[in-house]
Amino acid sequence: MIIIGEKINGSIPSVAKAIAEKDAELIKHLAKIQTEANATFIDVCASVEDDIEVETMKWLIDLVQEVTDTPIAVDSPNPRVCVEAMKFCNKPGLINSISMEGDKAQVVLPVIADTEWEVCALLCDDTGIPQTAEKRLSVFADLMAEVKKYNIDPSRIHIDPLIEMLCTAEDGINMVTSVMQEIKKQYPTIHITGAVSNISFNLPVRKILNQAFTVLSMNSGLDSAIFDPTNRDLIGMIYATEAMLGMDDYCMEYISAYRDGLFGPPQK
Amino acid sequence: MIIIGEKINGSIPSVAKAIAEKDAELIKHLAKIQTEANATFIDVCASVEDDIEVETMKWLIDLVQEVTDTPIAVDSPNPRVCVEAMKFCNKPGLINSISMEGDKAQVVLPVIADTEWEVCALLCDDTGIPQTAEKRLSVFADLMAEVKKYNIDPSRIHIDPLIEMLCTAEDGINMVTSVMQEIKKQYPTIHITGAVSNISFNLPVRKILNQAFTVLSMNSGLDSAIFDPTNRDLIGMIYATEAMLGMDDYCMEYISAYRDGLFGPPQK
Repeated sequence: MIIIGEKINGSIPSVAKAIAEKDAELIKHLAKIQTEANATFIDVCASVEDDIEVETMKWLIDLVQEVTDTPIAVDSPNPRVCVEAMKFCNKPGLINSISMEGDKAQVVLPVIADTEWEVCALLCDDTGIPQTAEKRLSVFADLMAEVKKYNIDPSRIHIDPLIEMLCTAEDGINMVTSVMQEIKKQYPTIHITGAVSNISFNLPVRKILNQAFTVLSMNSGLDSAIFDPTNRDLIGMIYATEAMLGMDDYCMEYISAYRDGLFGPPQK
Repeated sequence: MIIIGEKINGSIPSVAKAIAEKDAELIKHLAKIQTEANATFIDVCASVEDDIEVETMKWLIDLVQEVTDTPIAVDSPNPRVCVEAMKFCNKPGLINSISMEGDKAQVVLPVIADTEWEVCALLCDDTGIPQTAEKRLSVFADLMAEVKKYNIDPSRIHIDPLIEMLCTAEDGINMVTSVMQEIKKQYPTIHITGAVSNISFNLPVRKILNQAFTVLSMNSGLDSAIFDPTNRDLIGMIYATEAMLGMDDYCMEYISAYRDGLFGPPQK
């Protein structure tokens, strides 16, 4: 599982405060604990006013790179900010994110074409979030047409099929898992990602829903996700599911992750 | 989900002690807490020497029926003990279990034919536990041929495809979930059951594996299981999964079970 650590995000009040007060220690601490928890990428999202977004991204990225070699996921709704912020990174990371909305794909894809950068792509366009599997797959087809123009290998693309809250769904998660399955069928090496905790908005005991959803989504092809890697229960559930799905011979990785203290009762 | 509450079983040391010392209170307590936790059946297994098994079953069943109306799952490896113990029950319950081993099916099926009793049937025979999906499905076909002889509706049958430990599996749970899917395809109204905690034998943090397995098995048709219904995390995971699988419109049952205190942080 590719883990995009979500903890450095200006939409989280404690992080917004650290950004406002230039509290470098909190940012470095969040980078360190996510690295220790085996994050594949450390997401960095400033979530500040437009006029200071690039400089804030630079401040955050520099701090993260002071304490870890883990690649950065450059996170902004503005594709031009993403492209600027790439330059502050010591190594290729992940652009989070593009979609078929506006010129996002056209701004980002040519810039990453001849690099090792990866990119998250959401299945929405200028009409919003499509409400049927068929329409999301149509956005996917449009997106892959763009990706092909720049000769970008599907293995560098993380498709986010857009995980929406379960409490307003009429058919459970069937629509989104069927989208995942179809995409993985069309492009076996593509990654499927998502913000798994979206599923549980407005419902009690969110961690149970997030876990059940992660298990079922992995069964449908999810192999990347943005979440808190220090959430030991979810990490344990991911290792357990990989073993169930035949991706971990004789549970060696499950046992090894347990011995490394990544999940289970905290060890001394 | 049909919940077969597993706590009254003489193979559990504290229950064995209660049986040996005729400690009625412990047995009644276990019946009560499983009823409060919404068990569909209360499993009763004596696990004592043959010569006192029927009388011990009577003692246990009488105690359970003193405190609850929840139907009994009469649990013995000996089909003749099951048939004797049925007579002590105030209402139809579940026979746990038959298989194609020896004359188990031939002893039990005619007795329950014209009743409302249900029966668990394991997919093994005199050659042991088949090690391929094909062979398990062949045992299933033999079993259903017997079931048809007595005109028993498939909705009264709980097929246990035999859940084995993950740590020695070469392909994760793929074999057992494919058996579940095929059975449910052939007989949409049949129940699929199993001892879910078998999956985690010899592995650390068993509860995580049991939960992940339950979620994935429900996705393949599991709709009945033998486990501890006071295990709040597993109960929560089951309600969450039912909502994900589109069996719970707008999460009303999930929310209601939470409000009833069946899972989540204990309420006052």
